[in-house]
Amino acid sequence: MGNSSDVVSYAEQLIACKSVTPARGSVFDTLEAMLAPLGFAVHRFVAGGAPDGPVENLFAIRRGLPGSRHLAFAGHVDVVPEGEGWTSGAFTPERRGALLYGRGAVDMKGAIAAMVSAAAEVPAQAGTLSFIVTGDEEGPAVYGTRALIDLMRERGEIPDLCLVGEPTSVNRLGDMMKIGRRGSVNVFLEVEGSEGHVAYPHLADNPIPRLVAMLAELDALELDQGTEWFQPSNLEITELEVGNPATNVIPARAKARISIRFNDTHTGAELAQKVTEIANKHGGMARPIISGEPFLTPPGAFSEIVSSAVEAETGIAPEASTSGGTSDARFLRALCPVIEFGLPNATMHKRDEAVALEDLETLVRIYRRIALAALA
Amino acid sequence: MGNSSDVVSYAEQLIACKSVTPARGSVFDTLEAMLAPLGFAVHRFVAGGAPDGPVENLFAIRRGLPGSRHLAFAGHVDVVPEGEGWTSGAFTPERRGALLYGRGAVDMKGAIAAMVSAAAEVPAQAGTLSFIVTGDEEGPAVYGTRALIDLMRERGEIPDLCLVGEPTSVNRLGDMMKIGRRGSVNVFLEVEGSEGHVAYPHLADNPIPRLVAMLAELDALELDQGTEWFQPSNLEITELEVGNPATNVIPARAKARISIRFNDTHTGAELAQKVTEIANKHGGMARPIISGEPFLTPPGAFSEIVSSAVEAETGIAPEASTSGGTSDARFLRALCPVIEFGLPNATMHKRDEAVALEDLETLVRIYRRIALAALA
Repeated sequence: MGNSSDVVSYAEQLIACKSVTPARGSVFDTLEAMLAPLGFAVHRFVAGGAPDGPVENLFAIRRGLPGSRHLAFAGHVDVVPEGEGWTSGAFTPERRGALLYGRGAVDMKGAIAAMVSAAAEVPAQAGTLSFIVTGDEEGPAVYGTRALIDLMRERGEIPDLCLVGEPTSVNRLGDMMKIGRRGSVNVFLEVEGSEGHVAYPHLADNPIPRLVAMLAELDALELDQGTEWFQPSNLEITELEVGNPATNVIPARAKARISIRFNDTHTGAELAQKVTEIANKHGGMARPIISGEPFLTPPGAFSEIVSSAVEAETGIAPEASTSGGTSDARFLRALCPVIEFGLPNATMHKRDEAVALEDLETLVRIYRRIALAALA
Repeated sequence: MGNSSDVVSYAEQLIACKSVTPARGSVFDTLEAMLAPLGFAVHRFVAGGAPDGPVENLFAIRRGLPGSRHLAFAGHVDVVPEGEGWTSGAFTPERRGALLYGRGAVDMKGAIAAMVSAAAEVPAQAGTLSFIVTGDEEGPAVYGTRALIDLMRERGEIPDLCLVGEPTSVNRLGDMMKIGRRGSVNVFLEVEGSEGHVAYPHLADNPIPRLVAMLAELDALELDQGTEWFQPSNLEITELEVGNPATNVIPARAKARISIRFNDTHTGAELAQKVTEIANKHGGMARPIISGEPFLTPPGAFSEIVSSAVEAETGIAPEASTSGGTSDARFLRALCPVIEFGLPNATMHKRDEAVALEDLETLVRIYRRIALAALA
C-alpha cells in the first residue's frame, strides 16, 4: 500500500521523462515500474507506422475475484511541446512554494500519478482495476487509444465504467466533470471557375463569389438550439485560400475550410451531407473529415459516484459539462460509460504548467473514493 | 522617303531585339537608327530605380513650321515574356506564308514599324510629328510614359493630338478603335479578429464571417448601368487569404483583394471611399490603390479623322470602343486628346504571335492618312 504523499514523487518521475507526442520508451518504463509492484499485469505495445505512428501504448490490469466489477482509469503520458519562456526546465520537475512545475503537471501526468496512488490504496479484492494509457493523445491519435480498445476487445477485458483523468476542473479542483463531448467534423470546400483577365470578366468565371455565397449560407446555419446537456452546435470558418498574386487576374479556384463542433442531435455523416449539399448548390465541392462523434454518459449512477466523491473531498458538487474540445473519451465510449474528471486546467499547454501539491493529494482521495464506489 | 515595304523590315528588326519588360538598350538603338535618318531629334533617357525601374524611354520629334500642328505617335517597344511552345523562335522574326511571326508582332512592334514608315511618307513641312515610346508598358509603368510626359512638359512639347498604336482591332484590321478606357482600382481588404480554439468560439473572434459578409455586399454592388460610351463598371474579387493550417484554430486575421474596372461616372477616389466605408461597416480595413482613372475622348473631330482613314483603307468604319484593359493612354490623356488604333489582337501575349504582312502595309497607309489629316 502506498500513501498519498507518493503522488508527488510519482508525478515528478513522470514529468522528468521527456515525452512529447508521440511518447515512447522511458515514460512507459517509469509507469510500468510503478504499476507492477501494485500487482498489475502490464502489457505494452507499439502500434502503427508513419505518418501517424509508431505509437506506444500500455494496458495494465489487476483482476479482482471472478465476476467482480471492473473500473478502468484512462489517460495519456504524452505531452505537448515545451514552448518557450519557462522559469525552470519544462522536463525538470521543480517544487516552488505550494506548486509543482513541469510540462504535463496537469495534462495529465499529475492525474496518472494520482490514479496510481489511488490504485495503491484500493484493496485488490475490491474488484478489477485497469489502466488504459496511450503515448498519443495530443497528436493524431490514430494508433493510440483506438489500438488499446482493439487490444481489450481481443482479450475480452471490457470495463464496466471508465474514468478519464483529463484536467476538467476550471477554477478550482472539483468544479467540473465532463459527462460528454461534442463531435467534430472539418470540411474542405472548393469552387472551381475559369481563369481570366479582370478587364474581360465575361470570358472568365470567377469562383470567389460562389464561395462567398456558400460561406455566407453556412455561417448563417443554425444547427440546433442545444440540448439539456449540450450547448448549441457551432460552425466556424477556419481558412480561406485562393493564392492569386496578380491584381488583374480572375483566379480559377477558391478554397475554404470549416470546422463544426456538434452535439448529439447530429451525427458527423448527417452534417457532412448537409454541408456537401450547400456546397453543391453553390457549384462547389466538399470533402468532409469526421474526427469524432459526440458522446454523452447521461447523468445517473456513474455521474453520481463521481460527484459524491468530489463533494466529499472538496465540498463542492462538480458541474456536469459537455463543453470544450475532444478527448479520447470519444473512443472509450465504445467500451462502456465514460466520465472525465481531473485537475484544474488553467496552465495546460502553457509555459510554467503547474499543479498545486494539495490538489494532487486531494485528487488521489477522490479517485480512491470513485474506485471503491464503482467496484462496490 | 521610305515606302510601305520598309515596314516589314522595320518590324523584323524590332522583333529581333529581345526586349522583355523593362526594355533597354538595343531595341532603342534600333528604333533610333530608323528615326534619325528621317529627320527626328531623338532623346533617350533612363528613369527610376528598383523595384519599378530603371526604365528606358525615347522621345523623338521632327518639328514643322513654327505654329504648325503637332501629332504624337505613342507606344512601347517592351514585350511580354516569350512563354512556351513557339513554332519558331519568339525573337527570331520569321515570315511563313502571309504572316510575320515573333513576340511583339502585334503588341506592338508592328505598329511602331508602321508609325515609322508612315512618318517617312509624311513631308516634314506638313507639321510636327513626335514619337513617345517607352520600354515599360507591360510592367509597373511607373517610370515609363509618365516620365516621358514629365519630359515633354518640361520642354514645352505638348502635342495637339496623340495616337496610340495598341492592337485595338479584333477580328480584322480596322474593326475597332479605342476612344477611352476604364479606370482601375485595386483594394486590399483585411479583417482582424482574435485567435482561439474552435471548441471555445466565445473566447475568440473569428474575422472570416465579417470578411464574407463584406465581400457579399461588395459583390452585390451595382456600380452603374454603363453610359453611352462605357460598359457598366465591374468589381471582381481576386484573392482570399487566411493562411491557417490548423483545423482546430480560429484565425486572427483574414484578407481579400478586389479589382474594380470603372467608367467615367466614377473616380478612383470615390470608389476607394465607397469600398472603405463598406469594409469599415463590417469591422474591416481597406487599402485602395488607384492604378488609373478612366478617360474618354468623346467622338468628334479626332475620332472622325481616325475613322475616315481606316474606312478609306479597309472599307469598314471602326467601332468606337472603351472596352478592355488599361493602356498608357490613361497617362497621355493629360497632354491632349488620345485615340488608340492598331493591329488585330488575336495573338497578342500568346505563343506564335503573328501579324499579316498585308495588315502591316495597310496600317502604314492608315497612319499616314491620320497624320496628314491631323496636321492639316
